[in-house]
Formats: sequence, C-alpha cells, structure tokens
Amino acid sequence: MIFACNFGILLGFAREKIVKMNTSAPSKDLYGEYREQMHKIADVRNAMAVLQWDQETYMPPKGSVFRAQQIATLSEQAHLQFTSEAMGNLLEELIGRNDLSKEEQANITLSNEDYLKQKKYSPAFVRTMSEMASKSFQAWLDARKENQFSLFQKDLDSLISLKKQETDILGYSAHPYDALLNEFEKGATVSMLDKIFGEIAPPLKGILNKIVTRKQVDDSFLHQPYPHQEQWDFGISLIMELGFDFEAGRQDISEHPFSTSFNCRDVRITTRIDDQNLGNMIWSCMHETGHALYEQGLPEGEYGLPLGEFASLGVHESQSRLWENEVGRSQSFWKYAYPLIFNAFPQQLEKVAMDNFYRGINRVEPSLIRTQADELTYHFHVMIRYELEKLLISGHLLTADIPAWWKEQYKTWLGVDVPDDKRGCLQDVHWSHGSFGYFSTYSLGSLYASQFFEAAGHQIPDLDQLIRRGQTKPLLGWLRTYIHQYGRRFTSEELCLKATGKPLDIQCFLTQMLDKYRNIYEF
Amino acid sequence: MIFACNFGILLGFAREKIVKMNTSAPSKDLYGEYREQMHKIADVRNAMAVLQWDQETYMPPKGSVFRAQQIATLSEQAHLQFTSEAMGNLLEELIGRNDLSKEEQANITLSNEDYLKQKKYSPAFVRTMSEMASKSFQAWLDARKENQFSLFQKDLDSLISLKKQETDILGYSAHPYDALLNEFEKGATVSMLDKIFGEIAPPLKGILNKIVTRKQVDDSFLHQPYPHQEQWDFGISLIMELGFDFEAGRQDISEHPFSTSFNCRDVRITTRIDDQNLGNMIWSCMHETGHALYEQGLPEGEYGLPLGEFASLGVHESQSRLWENEVGRSQSFWKYAYPLIFNAFPQQLEKVAMDNFYRGINRVEPSLIRTQADELTYHFHVMIRYELEKLLISGHLLTADIPAWWKEQYKTWLGVDVPDDKRGCLQDVHWSHGSFGYFSTYSLGSLYASQFFEAAGHQIPDLDQLIRRGQTKPLLGWLRTYIHQYGRRFTSEELCLKATGKPLDIQCFLTQMLDKYRNIYEF
Repeated sequence: MIFACNFGILLGFAREKIVKMNTSAPSKDLYGEYREQMHKIADVRNAMAVLQWDQETYMPPKGSVFRAQQIATLSEQAHLQFTSEAMGNLLEELIGRNDLSKEEQANITLSNEDYLKQKKYSPAFVRTMSEMASKSFQAWLDARKENQFSLFQKDLDSLISLKKQETDILGYSAHPYDALLNEFEKGATVSMLDKIFGEIAPPLKGILNKIVTRKQVDDSFLHQPYPHQEQWDFGISLIMELGFDFEAGRQDISEHPFSTSFNCRDVRITTRIDDQNLGNMIWSCMHETGHALYEQGLPEGEYGLPLGEFASLGVHESQSRLWENEVGRSQSFWKYAYPLIFNAFPQQLEKVAMDNFYRGINRVEPSLIRTQADELTYHFHVMIRYELEKLLISGHLLTADIPAWWKEQYKTWLGVDVPDDKRGCLQDVHWSHGSFGYFSTYSLGSLYASQFFEAAGHQIPDLDQLIRRGQTKPLLGWLRTYIHQYGRRFTSEELCLKATGKPLDIQCFLTQMLDKYRNIYEF
Repeated sequence: MIFACNFGILLGFAREKIVKMNTSAPSKDLYGEYREQMHKIADVRNAMAVLQWDQETYMPPKGSVFRAQQIATLSEQAHLQFTSEAMGNLLEELIGRNDLSKEEQANITLSNEDYLKQKKYSPAFVRTMSEMASKSFQAWLDARKENQFSLFQKDLDSLISLKKQETDILGYSAHPYDALLNEFEKGATVSMLDKIFGEIAPPLKGILNKIVTRKQVDDSFLHQPYPHQEQWDFGISLIMELGFDFEAGRQDISEHPFSTSFNCRDVRITTRIDDQNLGNMIWSCMHETGHALYEQGLPEGEYGLPLGEFASLGVHESQSRLWENEVGRSQSFWKYAYPLIFNAFPQQLEKVAMDNFYRGINRVEPSLIRTQADELTYHFHVMIRYELEKLLISGHLLTADIPAWWKEQYKTWLGVDVPDDKRGCLQDVHWSHGSFGYFSTYSLGSLYASQFFEAAGHQIPDLDQLIRRGQTKPLLGWLRTYIHQYGRRFTSEELCLKATGKPLDIQCFLTQMLDKYRNIYEF
C-alpha cells in the first residue's frame, strides 16, 4: 500500500481495483500463447529476484521473516504455473511443429525438457526437500556458530538421503551423481569431470610445489588503509571501463558480493569494501561485472524464454573469471590501469612499481578458505568438494567421517592443517541448501575462460595491444557474438566448439598457469 | 538468476528446483485455509510494492519497460487469486459462522465485501480500464510537456465515460460520484462532503481574507543554501525523534516523497532534498513518517487480512497530517526541536529567533500548486477538485470547459491568476490513472487529524508539556491504542467515535486554524 504526499507516482494502490489482464485473445497463435505464458512466469521469477536483491542490500533487519514467506510464495507460483496442465498441453502441441523458426523450435525443445524434468518431482518431494533445506540451513548456521560439524551431521544425512532419491527421480545411466551435476551443467558427468580433474590436478600441484620453494612475492601494499569512498569510486570507474551499462544496471554494497538480473536491461551487482584490503573490492567488482556483462548481453527479445537465459553455470562462471582473471590479473590490463589506480591511491602505492603490483596481485598461497583462494589453488578447493560429494552420493563415505577426510585432503593437496570445522568442512553454505553438484562449475568456468580468451586473442587483431590501451570493447564484442547472443540455445560444449573451434581443451588453462607463474615466481 | 562469488546467500537460483509448497493439509480448518490464501495474495501484492519502491528509488532507467510488465503480472495474479471460485466458496462457507472470534468474523465480513465488489468487474472492463489508464497517462505526460490541456481532453473524456460505467457497476443510491468516493473512503458521499466543504470553506476563506491584509511573515530563512548531507542527517534524526523504527523500515531518496509498506516490519519512506529549501525535506519527512508510524503499528498477526490493513485513505492521511501539522508545525514541538535544528544549521539560522522560525514555517500564501500549498489554503485546492469531479461525473460540465472553470475557481477561492494549464488543471496525475474521488480524503485527513490530536490532548495528561520536551511517545502510544491496532476493523467514522467520543467535528479543525493564524498574523 503506497501513500504519496505527491500522489503522482505509483499506480495500483487503491485496493487492487485496476489490474492489467493479459488474458489472450482467441485468435492468438500457439507460439505467441507460449511466449506470453513464459513471460508471466519470468515476471514472477524476476520479482522474486528483486525481493532477494533487496533482502541482501537494503531490507531492514525485522523484515526477514515476511520476506522469506513472500519469496516462497512467488517461488511456488512460478513452479505451479510452469508445471500446469495448460503449459504441458501447449508444449505438446508445439513440439516438433515445422512452421516455427529454428530459434522458436529451440525454445520449445528446451522448455519441454524443463517441463518434463519439473513434472518428475512430486509436490510431496518438493515440499519435503524445501522444508529440509530450511531446517538444515539453520542447523548449518548453528554448527558454524558452535564450530562443530556434528551439529550439522544429522540434517546433512537427511539431505543426502533426499538427494539420492532425487537421482532416482531424475534418472542416470552411469553414476547417480551425474543426475545432480546435470542440474547445474547440462551434460556434465562424473566420467567427464574425473578426467578433467585427473588431468589438471597433477600439473597444478607441480606448479604449486615449484612456487612454495621460491621467494614469496610481496602483496602487503594491498593490505593497508584504503578509505571506503575512494575504494567505491575506483570500483565504479573500473566497472565502467569494462563496459558495464549503468543505464541498465547498478552496483550496491552487500555482505557477500553477488550479481543478479531482472532482465537484460536491469542487472545488479554488489561488492564489499574492506577498509584494510583493496583487493577484495577490485576483483569482486571485476568478477561480478563479468557475470553482469553476460546478462546485459542476453537477447532482449527472448525475455523469459530459454534463448533469453544463460547457457549454464559453467559458462556464466567463465564470463566472470574471464574478466576477473584473464583480464583483471593480467599484465596487459594493468599496463593501462596501473596509472589509474596509482592516481586514485598515490600514497598507498607510492613505493610500488607496476611490476611488483602485478606480481603482488597474483600471489599464490595455499589456504583454508575457498572464497579467499588465489587463481591457482582455488581448483584444489573445488576438486576436494567434488570428490567428497561423489563419495557421499555414491555412499562410499559416511558423513561422520567428513571432518577427518577433509583434513587429510587439505594436507595432501594444499599442505595446510585444518584447525577446526568452521575453517574446514563447514565453510560453504551449498550443501545446507541442498545444492550438490554445483562446485565443479567453478572450475569449468576457469577452463572455459582460458579457452575463450585464447580464441578471442586469435580472432581479434592485436587484442593484447588493445587491452594495454584499455580498449576492452572488442573483447566484449567477441563475447557478445560468440557467447551472449545465443542465450541457452547451445550447451557449454557446443558453445565452446562454435567459439573456439574445438571442444574443451584443458591444456589452454594449464599452459597459461604455467607461463604466468613461471614468470612471476621465476622457476 | 543470481550468481554469487561467495555463493552463500541466495536460495532458489538453480532453475526453480526447490519451491516451497504451501498446499494445505486436508485437516486444516476453514478459517486457517482462508488465512493462508490471504497470506499468499498479500505476498504477491507486497512483492508488487517492493517492485514499485525499487522503481522509484534505485531502478536503472532502462529497466522501466520490463518492470511495468512485471508489476502488471503480479497485479493480475493477485486479482485472479482473490476473485477465484475457491476463494468465493471459502468465504461463503465462513460468512456468518458463529464459532469464529469477533476479529475473525470481521475479517471474513470485510473480505467478503471486497470479494463481492471485485467480482462485479468483468475482465473486459478491467482490461479496458487498465489500457485506458496507461494510454491517458501518456497523453497527460505529453499534454503537460506541451502545456496544453486539449491534448489530454479526448482521453479524459474516455476515462470519465468509463468511470460513469463503473458507478453503474458498483451501484449507488443518491449520486453516481458516491460510488467512486466510497472506493477510497468507505461511507463517503456527496451529501456528506458537500456539507463538510460547505461548512469549512467560508470560515477558511474568512481567515485567508484577514491574513492577506496583514503584514506577511518572513520565511526567507528556509530559502537559502542548505547542504544535502546535513539536510539528510537532520531528517533522519527527526524521524527517529518521532518514533520511526529503523529496524523495521528505512528512508531513501526519490523524486516524489512517498511511503509504502511490505508488512508492518518493513515500512519504507522517501524524501526529496532541495539544496536551496530546507522546508521541503523537513515536512515531507514528518508527513511520510506519520504514514509509516501507522503501518508499523498495524497488528502483525493480521498480516494479509483486513484487520492488518489501514482503515481508509482518510485515516491514513490523518496520521501523516497529524505528525506533519499538529506536531510538526506547532510551537510546542519546535520549543524542543529548535535548538536541534539550530545546532544543525547554525549559520543559516543565526539571525532567526525561535518565534520567527515558528511564524515562518506557518506562512500562508495563496498559490497555484496544490502540493506546495500551506496548511490553510490547501483545502481550497482540494475543494476545487472535488467540485470539478462531481460536475464531470454527473455530466454537468464538459471537459472542454475545464480550463476556464479552473481559472475562475482559482480566482474566486485563492485570488490567483492561473497562467497556463501546467500550473492549472494539468498539475495532478490522479485523473490520468483513473482515480476520481481521491482528493477529498486529503481534507478529511486534516479534519480527523485535528480531532484526534485534540482528543489525545484531553486524554494524555500534559501532552503539550511532553511535546515541549520532545516526548512524543505517549502521543504515538495513544494513536496505537485508538487507531493503529484496529487495522480496518472500523470505518473512519467508527474509529473517530471510539477515539474521540464524537463523530467528525469540523469545528475542532476550524478553531485550531483560527487560533493559530490569529496568533501568527495578529488579527
């Protein structure tokens, strides 16, 4: 209910008298009808995203209980509408019709896939899973607070049992975990990921082993007082440099940086500012901007339809990592941007040469917390979680054994001693939400990012020279052309083939890592 | 779709896999079922309010088109759910049941009234009205831009024709305009409002005639440079003084100040800051805080039900005007607050004595624009619009004659010459939205505010002394007890009787006006 001193701004606040009725005229064609229904479902989902964004940015603390309920209601409605019999009939009539364009056919095929998948879940299962997720999220919070995994264990057991049921509901051929991986990355399987991690882990470990024997690079210049407002201003200028359209989005502050989109013309990112650490802000800005540039580049005309959605989580992450790492931690970009950051923080950077800045921002150091890890060791954090989930879903590890297993793995791969559960197996929220199969998309994102960036380098004349002059528009244009414009039309594998001429090639990433750190750590 | 660098914050972003299903268990009692359905409808309406709030505060410009569509979809869904057959059956079974508490019965009765009213509108009529409102809002914008009423006239004709149809749909006994008035203020009629305006206009005109012969008070101290941040800070401190709970709400900046609520634990207000005018900010803060204190005081347990809603627009406006005028323009309050404002702006107020401050903030001056009018002349602006709407709905004035009629009325009542349509009959947005019958609630609000404030003064020992010490909590407590806690349980008339012991008594307002201006203008 809205009251305006000057009334003139907000419609629809007399008790729901005037509502827009979008009921379709009988003459409307079937595809148009499908499109309209999908728009409405997208409207509800995007409204939910606005409520979530507000929850993380501006909502006053007491608003949380009703907000959770409001989001749950919208979520339920979007689900009910999408799985309605009417939608099923519509899709059934449209599937395989040959008077549709290729794009229209792709939308129908993908929507039908989504529909059939959603219909597999019984309302009872959905309800149980949702309730369990709420309950175990609380248990996870408590367990973290008490720094005691055992307080989370019982709920985690129940969640895993439900996820096992879900693998049966969804179906799989080789490994039950495949069913869950596929939810986040279409086509991802244990067999594929085992191969990838099996191939990247030893060389990355080899690089790490070299690095720890070399003199550590100095990044202390990042850890000194950087005033809040100056950080914010520099972040905004950086985001603009990368091509974020502030007419079609905005940045705010939140506790954990994230990006979200309500449509391609309204994409929101957030950052976090630590007055004693410049790095947090800079690379979170670039990371989230990468996500946002993808969302701003999705085709407007396909709003609410699969072709207006991102391809996969792996591809989304490839966009964030490309801007964060391939551009944002490169010598070329800082060739251009170092004078800018020096201008913004002349005192703090007074004694830091450009070359030392570059080395400092690429410092590698094995650590306990995934979200604070560097570009190289990050993948060990991911791999450990991937292996653990696989063991849990296949029943080869009991939850009681997680803490010990975790310590062992961190010692083996990262050489660090895990002092407690909070800095160990309780650090991520994912499982408490019922998300199993998500982590691997982070590493896939890095692998795709390397390959996309390399391909762009081959196809854009003098890309490196352009970046050295701060001209990143051609790179963005390339991403728009080869990735963004297609939405969800192609899988990550298909996109990779189209954009780079070959399937996922991990050598690209490994070569980059080796070259970079050989140069920085001089081995 | 949300992507988090640190995932740990936002649920539900894997493609709608986990949704909360609130489907009711068969054993649930009927009233519980009604309550649950109403909650869901409220969730959708409040989500709509969040989207509107965001639209006016933070949304980037390119987001507007999709946002309008998202709001329309939510609006439609709330309407469809509330007017569903299931809801009708539920209400039919519950109405008149004697195993319900008094409060439960009141909810059912009011919901049933709403339901029956909503059902009167055919989908075709709702659609036509909505489309016409969108169209004529654009025409109004264009007409304002060109400063030419004739560009709006055709659409206004169509709107009036639709509103006449609506009076037939809703039904009325004495005057068709009654049906429209009743939409904003239950029980309001032409006969009642004719009497009220007939009784307040001559005495107010009498006071005004006295004032214009006296020496004008000086308010130039309000019109000088006041820095933005200092204004903002003072506004926030003022709002806190009045008892606004910042844990359950917030203030932001928007082009036009407004208040909105997503539930009693999340109430948002906005203000506008003019660097050359302190007054805009101060009294918009106090006005919107008055609305917000009402919303924060509604019973939490009645969320989504009539007893959790405000009583009427007139009562809502009584709350904003009570804090804005009865408190916010009183000598007593500024006795306490003047040292505070002086501290905040020592340079600007250096030569302004407290008494001159009080006189300045109560300066009366006939003017052209309603929203900028003072406490006294405001009611002539309202009355002119009320009379005009009555004539238009009853068919006694043609739209072509509006500009001339407007000029004549402004000359008669306010003694000002209307130079053009923009500063005349095109200044308010209300008609372009299809709102006819709204304006009079502004005056009703002032009348109720006076009477409520007087009653509180009788019932709270030393209220004036308390206010002079800045202690407004007892006043808020009185409003909570006599107004806020009841939600929509009583009509404005019933509330007035309960709270003040008598029906609406305009003498209260008139006496206050006379006393105040006699003192300030010394007549």
